[in-house]
Amino acid sequence: MTAYDYIRDGNAIYERSFAIIRAEADIARFSETEADVAIRMIHACGQVEAAKNFAFSPDFVVAARAALAAGAPIFCDAEMVAHGVTRARLPAGNEVICTLRDPRTAEIAKAIGNTRSAAAIDLWGERMKGAVVAIGNAPTALFYLLEKLRDGAPKPAAIIGMPVGFVGAAESKDALAENSYGVPWAIVRGRLGGSAMTAAALNSLARPGL
Amino acid sequence: MTAYDYIRDGNAIYERSFAIIRAEADIARFSETEADVAIRMIHACGQVEAAKNFAFSPDFVVAARAALAAGAPIFCDAEMVAHGVTRARLPAGNEVICTLRDPRTAEIAKAIGNTRSAAAIDLWGERMKGAVVAIGNAPTALFYLLEKLRDGAPKPAAIIGMPVGFVGAAESKDALAENSYGVPWAIVRGRLGGSAMTAAALNSLARPGL
Repeated sequence: MTAYDYIRDGNAIYERSFAIIRAEADIARFSETEADVAIRMIHACGQVEAAKNFAFSPDFVVAARAALAAGAPIFCDAEMVAHGVTRARLPAGNEVICTLRDPRTAEIAKAIGNTRSAAAIDLWGERMKGAVVAIGNAPTALFYLLEKLRDGAPKPAAIIGMPVGFVGAAESKDALAENSYGVPWAIVRGRLGGSAMTAAALNSLARPGL
Repeated sequence: MTAYDYIRDGNAIYERSFAIIRAEADIARFSETEADVAIRMIHACGQVEAAKNFAFSPDFVVAARAALAAGAPIFCDAEMVAHGVTRARLPAGNEVICTLRDPRTAEIAKAIGNTRSAAAIDLWGERMKGAVVAIGNAPTALFYLLEKLRDGAPKPAAIIGMPVGFVGAAESKDALAENSYGVPWAIVRGRLGGSAMTAAALNSLARPGL
C-alpha cells in the first residue's frame, strides 16, 4: 500500500515555499517591500526565473498599499483575478469588482469596437478614481485603460498590469511602463503574467510582510 | 497624443495566438486531440516552453471528453479554477463545484490533519464517481485524492493534476502519473501548473477542436 510523504500543514508549506524562493530567486534589485510582492508572484507561478520580468514604478508599493488601507475598491478585468483575492487579507473590507459579466458589457463592446474585457472598464466610471486596478488577463483591457487615461478618465491610485499571452500582452505592458499618465504601476514584461500572479500581487499589497 | 496600435477583435486575437503557438511550440509528440489541449494550456500561461512538461495518459482526452459530454460534474480544488471555466463551452450544462469555502471544510481539515484544500475533497462523496476532477492549486489536495483512491474512494472519469509551486507540487504530480489507480490523468511536471492552465485544459476538453 502506497504511503505518501508530504507536508500537510498549510502554514509550514507557505514558510517552506517562501524560503525556497528567497534562496533561489534573484530579487536583490528590489526594495524590501517590492521583494515581498515579487516573492508572492513567484509563488503563484512556480518560477523563480519570472522575477527578471517584474518591474515596479518607484512609488507603486506605497501608493497601492495606502489606497487599499484607505478602503479603495479593487477593479479586475477577469473573474479569475477577482476570485484569487483572499478577502480575509484585505485591510478595509475593500470591494473587489469585475464587470466582465455585466449585461451591458456586450453592447458596449459593439459600440466601442473592442473586446468585452475592454468594454467592461467603461462601467467603472468615477469610482476608478483612487482605486486599485488589476489587469491580469486581457491586453485589450490594459490598452483601453491607457486610452481612457489619455482621454482624461479618473486616475486610479495604482495599476497592476499583468495580462498574459501572445498578442498584445508584452506591448500593452511596455506601453503602461512608458507612459502611465502619472499612475504608479507594476508589470511583468513579455508574455508572462496572468490572473494568479495578479491576484498574488494584490494579496501581497493587502497586508505588509509576507 | 499617443495612439495605441492593437487588435481589438477577440476572435482575431485567439486565432493569431493559436497560430503563434503552433509555429513556436514543440507539440509533435502529442496526438491531435492532446495538441488541442496543450495549445490552450500554453495560451493560458504564455510560455511555449511549458509544453515539454505536459503529460497525458493515453486514454485521458477521450475519457474526459466523454464524461463531460455525458454531463459529468467538474470538481475543482480552487475557486480560481472554477471561475476560469467558460460555462458557455460546457457540453451539458455541467455543474462546476468547489467546496473549499464550504463551512464544514475547516473542521474536516482539523479532523484529518491536512489542509482545507485537501479536506474539501471529503465533501465530494459518491458524486466523485465518473466526475472530472481538476486540481490546479494545492499539492495537498492531489496527494489526499490519491490517498482516498488508494483507500477505495469512488473513481473519477479523469483527473487533471496541475498544482503549482515549490513544496509538493512536482512530487504529487509524479505520484499521480506513477499510479493513478486506473483513472486517466493529465499533468504538468515540475513546479509549473496553476489555475489558469487547469481551467484552460477544462475549457479545451469541453468542446472538440480549438
